[in-house]
Amino acid sequence: MTEYRFTSLAKSLPATVPFVGPEAQERAMDRVFDARLGANENVFGPSPAAQAAIAATGHWMYGDPESYDLRTALAAHHGTTMEHIVVGEGIDGLLGYLVRLFVAEGNAVVTSDGAYPTFNYHVAGFGGTLHKVPYRDDHEDPEALFAKAAEVGAKLVYLANPDNPMGSWHEGAALAKTMDRLPEGTVLVLDEAYVDTAPEGTALPLNWDDPRVIRMRTFSKAYGLAGARVGYALGAPELISAFNKVRNHFGMNRSAQAGALAALGDQAWLRETVGKVAAARDRIAEIAQANGLTPLPSAANFVAIDCGRDAVFAKAVIDGLVSRGIFVRMPFAAPQNRCIRVSCGTAEQLDAFAAALPKALADAKRS
Amino acid sequence: MTEYRFTSLAKSLPATVPFVGPEAQERAMDRVFDARLGANENVFGPSPAAQAAIAATGHWMYGDPESYDLRTALAAHHGTTMEHIVVGEGIDGLLGYLVRLFVAEGNAVVTSDGAYPTFNYHVAGFGGTLHKVPYRDDHEDPEALFAKAAEVGAKLVYLANPDNPMGSWHEGAALAKTMDRLPEGTVLVLDEAYVDTAPEGTALPLNWDDPRVIRMRTFSKAYGLAGARVGYALGAPELISAFNKVRNHFGMNRSAQAGALAALGDQAWLRETVGKVAAARDRIAEIAQANGLTPLPSAANFVAIDCGRDAVFAKAVIDGLVSRGIFVRMPFAAPQNRCIRVSCGTAEQLDAFAAALPKALADAKRS
Repeated sequence: MTEYRFTSLAKSLPATVPFVGPEAQERAMDRVFDARLGANENVFGPSPAAQAAIAATGHWMYGDPESYDLRTALAAHHGTTMEHIVVGEGIDGLLGYLVRLFVAEGNAVVTSDGAYPTFNYHVAGFGGTLHKVPYRDDHEDPEALFAKAAEVGAKLVYLANPDNPMGSWHEGAALAKTMDRLPEGTVLVLDEAYVDTAPEGTALPLNWDDPRVIRMRTFSKAYGLAGARVGYALGAPELISAFNKVRNHFGMNRSAQAGALAALGDQAWLRETVGKVAAARDRIAEIAQANGLTPLPSAANFVAIDCGRDAVFAKAVIDGLVSRGIFVRMPFAAPQNRCIRVSCGTAEQLDAFAAALPKALADAKRS
Repeated sequence: MTEYRFTSLAKSLPATVPFVGPEAQERAMDRVFDARLGANENVFGPSPAAQAAIAATGHWMYGDPESYDLRTALAAHHGTTMEHIVVGEGIDGLLGYLVRLFVAEGNAVVTSDGAYPTFNYHVAGFGGTLHKVPYRDDHEDPEALFAKAAEVGAKLVYLANPDNPMGSWHEGAALAKTMDRLPEGTVLVLDEAYVDTAPEGTALPLNWDDPRVIRMRTFSKAYGLAGARVGYALGAPELISAFNKVRNHFGMNRSAQAGALAALGDQAWLRETVGKVAAARDRIAEIAQANGLTPLPSAANFVAIDCGRDAVFAKAVIDGLVSRGIFVRMPFAAPQNRCIRVSCGTAEQLDAFAAALPKALADAKRS
């Protein structure tokens, strides 16, 4: 047995995976899912212009390390400058860089109990100490988060709006008002991955130069490019430029840069997709109600369904769906884990979900 | 001016870029390069099967976090198991994870003076102390590297075989013999990015289970997929599995996984490409000699050309080439920086290089 001289921090880390991928489940079951509704992907897919741009890319060239064209277009789209924007390998990659910039061993970070696990993975990975506050009425609770941040002297506080896994959201104007409570010296990591499918007014209406907040956006959700791994962060240039100290400068896939640029240019497709997502949310809610379950209001591309009992029951429902070829997931923490979480799908996929759900519920009630 | 509470390490880091991209140079010059011969890309491009696999991917799905299919195929290709392989966002990404696993502030790391800057960037980024040994006769010097590693108690020692930027190489069997000198507790980071274009016998002929070495391979060079960002590391399972503690599990582009798998499956294309690379190396050497310069023998997809004077002169030659639309680079450190480094190109691109070089040399001699 070799004794590798890993850092003491690395030695202490578990080799965990924040999520098991659906492909691993498919391999274990030796069957392919009929409906892939567990990863909050966008089955309606990217703009054909994005698909074409990716196909047309000469893959032999490295990507532009500055993502100049994409950042220029994003700056125009958001009414800011490219110095306010860093492009990275999905929000996951950008969260990793951000945590690395701020968090040394023992530094305090605050999030909600049951919020995005990959953020927690990064905090643990850099030795930070994570403090959690509970959801309030299935919403992340900005006031409680900011109060906890003040109490523990947090460097970062994470808030997703809309929230994953519950789909709940806060109005941007209301959130802006609570910013007074954010303690000085704490940066708000505002994950707006799902903002494109949310009601008008959900995005935080703050100046892009506000140094207190960094906002995470992605092409993985409404733009339908999860496989391309393109996220971006918006913030004050002094904060954004710090990413250049640690990021993998040549880490961006060149065709993904081209695909994201094309996707951004096709806002008509985005609007159409947002409409399809809204219709699918409604359908998921109907299916839930038809089975005596309670769908929670959602601003995201998925719906959390309250199964009305505890996590053991919800897990049994998940198992019953998975074994019937429907890939779905559920929240990790109580009390949210009384729910299952169903991503928006095509009409056919939701038909398959509708057919499987009563059987899964019956099984769960028997077990 | 906001005082961000960055870590003390992050505060100390410069916002440097290991390399400026050719696109940035093109923007500055307001013209596009006629020949892109500076980044050791593979202009002959990937297998058409890879191009097709990328185009055919549904980009809305996240990639498989385990890269199961690709690792299975790579394991078969190399005669090992998938537990010996981790796939990541290019060798750059994997080097970052590796350094993160081993290097805490003040830990010693050894490399050659003028070797791959991105490795140095990662070491600095995690607070390591880098010790450098000189090249010997334009080769990286394993004995000197290992002796320095013993002297400073290095956790990692970096060696590229073939070397970038000089193109020189060591026979694998000779390198295997020097492994005795590798101090216990030091891991050899063997960057074999260019091994696919090297003579038979260049790869280190060691058991994949050898715990002393981790080997970096890539689809960016001979396979022609630099833009896809697919690298992999081969090593003992205990070392490979540690990457799961820190890597971005969902960081892989899904179409890139598919493209790499297809590229690996088209070994006939690879052999054809290797032939084209060899022919282009010969052509670059002829052009150098026709201009009174000395091409260095190369096992990689580029040729270092000794311009016979100092770094100031070589830089003037580079400037003369760049201003004439030929993108090339040069080594960073003396004495290698008496050279310019020219990547293999198509016949037309090398014609453009051949036409520009005498003018660039004349300018450089005048300056």
